[in-house]
Amino acid sequence: MKRTTVRPENAHQAALLRLLRERARSRAELGDVVRLSRSKLNLELDRLIELRLAEQAGLAASRGGRRSGLVRLASGLRFAGIDIGATSLDVAVTDGELEILGHVSEACDVRDGPVAVLDQAMEMIAKLRDQGLFTQLQGVGIGVPGPVSFREGVPVAPPIMPGWDRYPVRETVGQELGCPAVVDNDVNIMALGELHSGLAKQVDDFLFVKIGTGIGCGIVVDGKIYRGVSGSAGDIGHIRVDDEGPVCVCGNVGCLEAYFGGAALAREATAVAGRSPYLGERLRQTGTLTGEDVARAAEMGDAEAVRLIRDGGRRVGTVLAGLVSFFNPGLVIVAGGVARLGHVLLAEIRSVVYRRSLPLATGNLPIVLSELGPDAGVIGAARLGSDRVFSAP
Amino acid sequence: MKRTTVRPENAHQAALLRLLRERARSRAELGDVVRLSRSKLNLELDRLIELRLAEQAGLAASRGGRRSGLVRLASGLRFAGIDIGATSLDVAVTDGELEILGHVSEACDVRDGPVAVLDQAMEMIAKLRDQGLFTQLQGVGIGVPGPVSFREGVPVAPPIMPGWDRYPVRETVGQELGCPAVVDNDVNIMALGELHSGLAKQVDDFLFVKIGTGIGCGIVVDGKIYRGVSGSAGDIGHIRVDDEGPVCVCGNVGCLEAYFGGAALAREATAVAGRSPYLGERLRQTGTLTGEDVARAAEMGDAEAVRLIRDGGRRVGTVLAGLVSFFNPGLVIVAGGVARLGHVLLAEIRSVVYRRSLPLATGNLPIVLSELGPDAGVIGAARLGSDRVFSAP
Repeated sequence: MKRTTVRPENAHQAALLRLLRERARSRAELGDVVRLSRSKLNLELDRLIELRLAEQAGLAASRGGRRSGLVRLASGLRFAGIDIGATSLDVAVTDGELEILGHVSEACDVRDGPVAVLDQAMEMIAKLRDQGLFTQLQGVGIGVPGPVSFREGVPVAPPIMPGWDRYPVRETVGQELGCPAVVDNDVNIMALGELHSGLAKQVDDFLFVKIGTGIGCGIVVDGKIYRGVSGSAGDIGHIRVDDEGPVCVCGNVGCLEAYFGGAALAREATAVAGRSPYLGERLRQTGTLTGEDVARAAEMGDAEAVRLIRDGGRRVGTVLAGLVSFFNPGLVIVAGGVARLGHVLLAEIRSVVYRRSLPLATGNLPIVLSELGPDAGVIGAARLGSDRVFSAP
Repeated sequence: MKRTTVRPENAHQAALLRLLRERARSRAELGDVVRLSRSKLNLELDRLIELRLAEQAGLAASRGGRRSGLVRLASGLRFAGIDIGATSLDVAVTDGELEILGHVSEACDVRDGPVAVLDQAMEMIAKLRDQGLFTQLQGVGIGVPGPVSFREGVPVAPPIMPGWDRYPVRETVGQELGCPAVVDNDVNIMALGELHSGLAKQVDDFLFVKIGTGIGCGIVVDGKIYRGVSGSAGDIGHIRVDDEGPVCVCGNVGCLEAYFGGAALAREATAVAGRSPYLGERLRQTGTLTGEDVARAAEMGDAEAVRLIRDGGRRVGTVLAGLVSFFNPGLVIVAGGVARLGHVLLAEIRSVVYRRSLPLATGNLPIVLSELGPDAGVIGAARLGSDRVFSAP
């Protein structure tokens, strides 16, 4: 039998829980941050402890007077993050502060449809439960590789996810796990992961660019994901790079993705395989080439592979230069499968952005590779679930 | 002698004032919107009336029970908006709801420097005072045609404003008028004007594109101006349209502004004057051509002028198409001197954006010309001042 999950009773409690999610804090410190009288603050904290959402954690270091009691999130709180990729499935269970307690990663084909993929995800979560990591989850977040109606919790006409259109992902997972569930697209949840425990931890406004099968951008404004009016904000793969150029799946010509998405890179690699010893050999062995093959070839110094990465980086940089002038972010993080092409790619992107964006916008702008890797997605998904639970009723 | 201005005492009072700024509301209605007990709400409202920030306005229509008292902003509240353009100066005085009570517009050259221009603005405000429109202002907003450090209230290295760099505009005007002052760039204040009383009134997330001497974009996220980490967000004039193309004042080639800013349009018009009867005649008469001349020629059906506008619209549309895919706004408003080129320009912009942006982002996206004209700047400036005054202490 599923137990029901406990949620904060008012906006003050929700705000306190979000502060405690960052780290344990003393009552005095919490008093400095929230606009509550001391007695009201203590009342709300005691209530959170009663609800088993928070707990006492000894005394804080003295700030001059009496030592203030330290409060932290209840150590038994558990959240789950599910990151559904085109060809992979990542599931993790975290504590209340969203530290990963267990992370399982399996191969998976999103084209097998929602029933098969969500069944697999539930089995992976069951494994983590069997390891004793949790008995009841407080909340779960799910990332999918396509557009999502955030409000309704369903994928909407996702191009690479046949069978998923308007499938009730949020409802299915929420019922299965007996806790609140939230669904968003994979790029947004990765950006949230970076915000929670990656390089963007102290940054309010930043861009998270994922270069994989597709190319997408997570936009964070004032510490929150910006989704746009129909939820499609950040869909930069079809921004025009050139009036000429290859025809894109979308029907236009010269889209960024048509030059440098996973499929485009594989196509280009195949075209130059005859001039590249590594790619040629690999193509003969496997009959097909991927972005990963190009990355490996470049690592080994293959001139054609390095050229492909440079060309792609230049085009990504051209699009990013415009977005940096427009959005004036405090940080740009580059991630995703193709981003594993690494520092050659990063150097090219930086060179174009620093040259082409406004000096005022690039004066203090770090452009970096993600350091979280596949953890970004599951942490971000867990954070999304936690945001929902730690919000005012 | 200046009287001191009155401000709200806490966040609740500030929130109530911002609600009343939209329109008069009944106590019952305010109770539905704010999270306050009825007694606490009445206490705060009575205090606002005592402070002469609000006033009783009779009884509201019955909602079934006893009729609730109507409250509105005090009818004596006055704000001022100052909109400094490259060649014009607009000053207006508004009531608390930011209805314009008086609006003066004069020619002015921003290159005359801050002392001369601000003196002129103060004289214009004095004229409105002499008309009996106010005795004391509650707040004032100032828009300038260049980048601004919003936090410090000073222009920062503004390219077309010699002598203004880091000039203490906020402090000077605030002291002169004896009330809180706020400074922002002209595009942001125009966007605020559209938000307050223009076509964007019900829209949380939108873009306001001004095409004048320069090309800039106001970005509104969740009903607030988004300024970016160094305040340069929306500076889209130097986004690349093409790798070839004219050299821009910024040193790069192919910038949007180098094709279609006021200066570029004047240059292009001069180049084609030989093939255009209207432009040729005008050039002989005045020795120089402006964007306005092109607009007039196009209105008269001059083929060369129409072609110039179409070419410019196509390039603005190309840049906007990318930004629409990225930002997924609920509305795009086009305004400014060159935008008076009107519907030919708008048709071209729409055609490119609707063709090149993602269908999900353009499905419900109106692209419209501003209807406020020069009122947008002064209303937005007054709103900026009012935002500052109606905020928590």
